[in-house]
Parts: sequence; structure tokens; C-alpha cells
Amino acid sequence: MIKAYAAKEAGAKLEPFEYDPGALGPDQVEIAVDYCGICHSDLSMLDNEWGMTSYPFVPGHEVAGHVVAIGDGVKTLAVGDAVGLGWHSGYCNTCDSCRTGDKNLCATAEGTIIGRHGAFADKVRAHADSVVKLPEGIDIESVGPLFCGGITVFNPLVQFDVKPTDKVAVIGIGGLGHIALQFLNAWGCEVTAFTSSEHKKAEALGMGAHHTINSRDEAEITAAAGCFDMVLSTVNVKLDWNLYLQTLKPKGRLHFVGATLEPLDIGVFGLIMGQKSISGTAVGSPATIAKMLDFAQQHDVKPVIEKFKFSQVNEALDHLRSGKAKYRIVLEH
Amino acid sequence: MIKAYAAKEAGAKLEPFEYDPGALGPDQVEIAVDYCGICHSDLSMLDNEWGMTSYPFVPGHEVAGHVVAIGDGVKTLAVGDAVGLGWHSGYCNTCDSCRTGDKNLCATAEGTIIGRHGAFADKVRAHADSVVKLPEGIDIESVGPLFCGGITVFNPLVQFDVKPTDKVAVIGIGGLGHIALQFLNAWGCEVTAFTSSEHKKAEALGMGAHHTINSRDEAEITAAAGCFDMVLSTVNVKLDWNLYLQTLKPKGRLHFVGATLEPLDIGVFGLIMGQKSISGTAVGSPATIAKMLDFAQQHDVKPVIEKFKFSQVNEALDHLRSGKAKYRIVLEH
Repeated sequence: MIKAYAAKEAGAKLEPFEYDPGALGPDQVEIAVDYCGICHSDLSMLDNEWGMTSYPFVPGHEVAGHVVAIGDGVKTLAVGDAVGLGWHSGYCNTCDSCRTGDKNLCATAEGTIIGRHGAFADKVRAHADSVVKLPEGIDIESVGPLFCGGITVFNPLVQFDVKPTDKVAVIGIGGLGHIALQFLNAWGCEVTAFTSSEHKKAEALGMGAHHTINSRDEAEITAAAGCFDMVLSTVNVKLDWNLYLQTLKPKGRLHFVGATLEPLDIGVFGLIMGQKSISGTAVGSPATIAKMLDFAQQHDVKPVIEKFKFSQVNEALDHLRSGKAKYRIVLEH
Repeated sequence: MIKAYAAKEAGAKLEPFEYDPGALGPDQVEIAVDYCGICHSDLSMLDNEWGMTSYPFVPGHEVAGHVVAIGDGVKTLAVGDAVGLGWHSGYCNTCDSCRTGDKNLCATAEGTIIGRHGAFADKVRAHADSVVKLPEGIDIESVGPLFCGGITVFNPLVQFDVKPTDKVAVIGIGGLGHIALQFLNAWGCEVTAFTSSEHKKAEALGMGAHHTINSRDEAEITAAAGCFDMVLSTVNVKLDWNLYLQTLKPKGRLHFVGATLEPLDIGVFGLIMGQKSISGTAVGSPATIAKMLDFAQQHDVKPVIEKFKFSQVNEALDHLRSGKAKYRIVLEH
């Protein structure tokens, strides 16, 4: 039996919940959860915002743990391995995206907390190819959030060939943005933080930003016209996107990892005139996650975390809902 | 004196107009205009749609001609050279875009018909670095439209590294789209034409499309979900862009060369879920124009033209306004 925390319905408090996971599949592994981050998408799923949650719902997809059992066919992992697991817990391995290495773009990828039980639990299972070994010596307490929040901001640097000579700005200094600043600084870029919060300026500078711009001051933003190769938006609110488009250099990219629900009302002329692009990405492939972990360890990139006990999971969720988490929350036993 | 055709005010008929161009600058050339295409942007400028037209206004920026005089400093062209000239007639040559070869992205590039007189005339001047030699033997009657319409649809293939293995769709089979189909076919791509016009289907297939989809039939478009690496929009009307976004494969690009005035109401989830991009480009650099001309000659890509005499310029403009031009109009003396 696996001992977990589950919500019985949308928005409900989590309660202790046990389930029998059945026989371990030949390509699966069972992971003992040492730490699990809480991601904003755990809340969205808990509340059934996206209409695809099944209850009882066990959140948790930012896992740091160790392998306690492996299926007969698993060759790449062994019992005792320190590993992590993120948004995806399996892939079809037959579609074009899987076969070309872009497993995170697999249309039928299995979601760790979609139609199955996640890692707010003592154990969680996943297909071996979605489980990534941790580099030796990496900080295990804070590594979980890299598996969803971290890869979400790291993947665009790989996918769009960001160069150390690029000037990159990050909109929103929160759960995603504070990791983005660290990665971009380590990547060699000149980094600017757009933030609406005065008190976050000093923190942003401490986490790798070289400059800050007040995202509520139109004049400050306008003054940055033509400055950036990439602007990375981590927020989920509507901003004046055409204004941010103007802060791009020719050939620049406005990239979304934060899922704003309101459509982008982008003027075509603003794209055409400077050959600009707008794009979005979600998480990354296991291979890119492995690359990220190595890079994070080499450059001491770490999510800034607040720890809660699993038994305090509801307080932890409330803290995240309050918007006051700095910057990621990690649960431990 | 240069003998031209000019409009005295927005939307007016063109009338014969003479002007003294003054001394030829050291880096300028004077081109005798043998043929000049009419582009939709000549109409937009004539009508002062973009608020930047000065009158008397001489349209014309799709020039095929020959050099009749060169400035003292011009080393790359000689009197007698067969040449062409497009949207730009000069560049600053000092900005980052110019220095990295992207002269068409120069923010202070001189426009052939902006604040100066264009090529509805016996002669036109331009800075030598904006003038491109014609490959020997290229069809001079139809080459003019390649200098604006042609490069507009060719440049994205170069800028975004379109591959012969890509599946590309073109929205709108008109002045731009009919050239796009030819280039894409020659590029080796599997080509699909989206067209609202039944009678254009056969023409699209004749010009290089392998498939057609009725752009007014939502079911047909929906059935093409996940099909294309790139969708190239050449239209200037609002379509259901989120629907077209769904026709892209993961990592696909919806690219705009047609300047729709209404904002794109794009959902962010549609970008994030499949790592998709939206972008725009305008014309191309002189180096890319030269590359295009060689490619067009090698593969027999030619704008389909209707010819009018310069003396019939007003009839020609009316014909373009009617939307019935098939597909580009070229003026000759």
C-alpha cells in the first residue's frame, strides 16, 4: 500500500489516503519520496481549473527520492539510486516527438498527477524513462522544484539556442522567475528582471539580475526599447504585450512559460517590423532535465525553498495560495 | 530631370511629374527603369494608410532596369549592369543589424518610396548597396516583383531554416502566395495551399501546391491538426488564428508576412502545449535577395504577371485595387 495525501473533491483539504498500486510494471520503478516540491499547477489541478482532475487526487510532481524497486525490464536504474521525477511519468516512445528526443512534446505523455496518483506520498511510481538520476552531491532538499519549475525556465535556453552574449529579461520574480535569473546569470547572459514589487528588486539583483525594471512603470519599460534578445514571461496575468514586444531587439523573442488565460492581443506589425517571434514551452525532455541538473550543480543554481512537513501539507498549500511563498515550497517527511 | 508619375494627394490619380534629383551622391547609382512591379504597399502608401506618405508621391519599388550612372565611390556596380531594386534604397551600415548582414532590419533604412521618389518613372536612384545585380539570363519582365513580393515569402525560408523535409502551408493564394508556393515546391517541401476560392485550387496545384484546403471550411482545417512545420500567412484579413495554430506540428511556426491590422488573439496554452512560435518578417537583405534570384533562376520560379504600359498606370492601379490581378502587375514603357 502507498500512503498518500489526497483531496476527495475540487478545492478540498488533503487527507491521508492509502491505495494499492498493484504489480510493478516491467518498465516501471518505485521511488521512495524523500522530498516533494509544490508547484502552482498542483493547486490548479487540485481545484480542477483545467477540467482534467480525477478524485481522489494526490498532487505532487517535483520529486526527489530514491529507487526502492524496479521492473524486470529496467536497465538504466537500480535500487538505491537517488532520482527525481517531474511533470511526466511516462511517454509513448513511438511518436515523432518521442523518437526525436522531444519526449515532453509527446501528445500522449503520462502526467504524474493526471489520471493517476502523484508524489504527496511515501512512494510514487513512474516509467523508468521519465525518471532522472541525480548528479552526485547535488542538494537533495532543493532539487525537487528543478524537475518542474526549473526545467520550465531552463528548457527555453536550450530550445531557442540562447547565447551567453544575449541580453535576456525575465518578467515576474516568483517561483519560476527566481530560478530563471540564476540560470540566465550562470549562462553568461546580461540579465534584467521586470518586477512590480519594489522589495523584490534587491532580491532579484541578489539572484543574478544585473538590472531591474519596474513592470508597472510604462516609461521605464518604454526606455528599454530594442534592448533584449529574449524576454521570458513567467507571470499568469495579462500585461501590455505589445509594449514588451518593443523591448526586443530585431529578431528577438517574447517567450511564455507562464500560462496567461487571456489571449495575447499582439499586433502583427510589431512582429513583422523587427522579425520578432512569440512562443511558449512547457517543461522539458528527460535528457534536457539531466543536462539542467549538471548545469545547476556546476553553477550552484538552487531553488530558494521553504520546507513544510508532509503532515502540514494543507498549511503549505495555503501558504502557496497566499502568494507569499519565497519562492518554492518543499515537503519532507 | 526624371520623368515620373505622381499623386498630389492621398488616393489621387497619378499624373506625369518631373523632378530634378540633383547631383548623384558618391555611393549612389542611377537606374533606368525598364520594368516596375506594382505592390499592394504602393496602394497603401498612395492612400497614406500608414500615415507616412509625402506628396507628390511617386510609387514603385519593384524595379528591373539597368545602371546608367554611378557615384564616384561605387565599386560594385558599373554602367550597363542589369539590376533590380526593392523596398529599401539605402541602409545606415552602422547599426548592429547592418553590421551583421540583416540590413533589412536596419531601423533607419531608407525606403524607396518613403520621403523620396520611387520607380514609376524613367529613372530612379538608390544607394549602391541596396541594388542587386540580376543573374544573367533571368526573365527581366517578371523579375521586378521578386524584389518585394518574392523576397517577402523567400526570406522566412532562410531566416527560420526551413528544410526540404518540412511540410509547409500557405494561407492566401494571391500576389505573395502564388510565389510562395513556387519557392516552397522548389525548396523540396510538401506544400499545402489554404485558399477560400474554389477556382484557385487548380491554379495552386499548378503552381507547386501538393494539396489544398478550403480556408472557409473549419472541418477541413481541423482535420489538418498537427500537420505542418510552418504555416505562412500572406493574407491581410483576420482569420481564426488559434485554429491555424492547431494545424502545426509540435515546434511549428505560424509566420506572418501579410499585415493583418487586427491584433492576433492567440491563446498562450496553444503556444505552450506544442512549443509553437508565431512570427513576422518583412522583405530581406540584399544578400538574401541575391540568393533568392539565383534560386529562382535555377528552379524557374517566376511571378505570374500582367503587363500594363506606364501610361496606363491608373488603370493598372485600379486593376490591383479590384483584387482581380493575377497575380502581380508589371509596368513597362
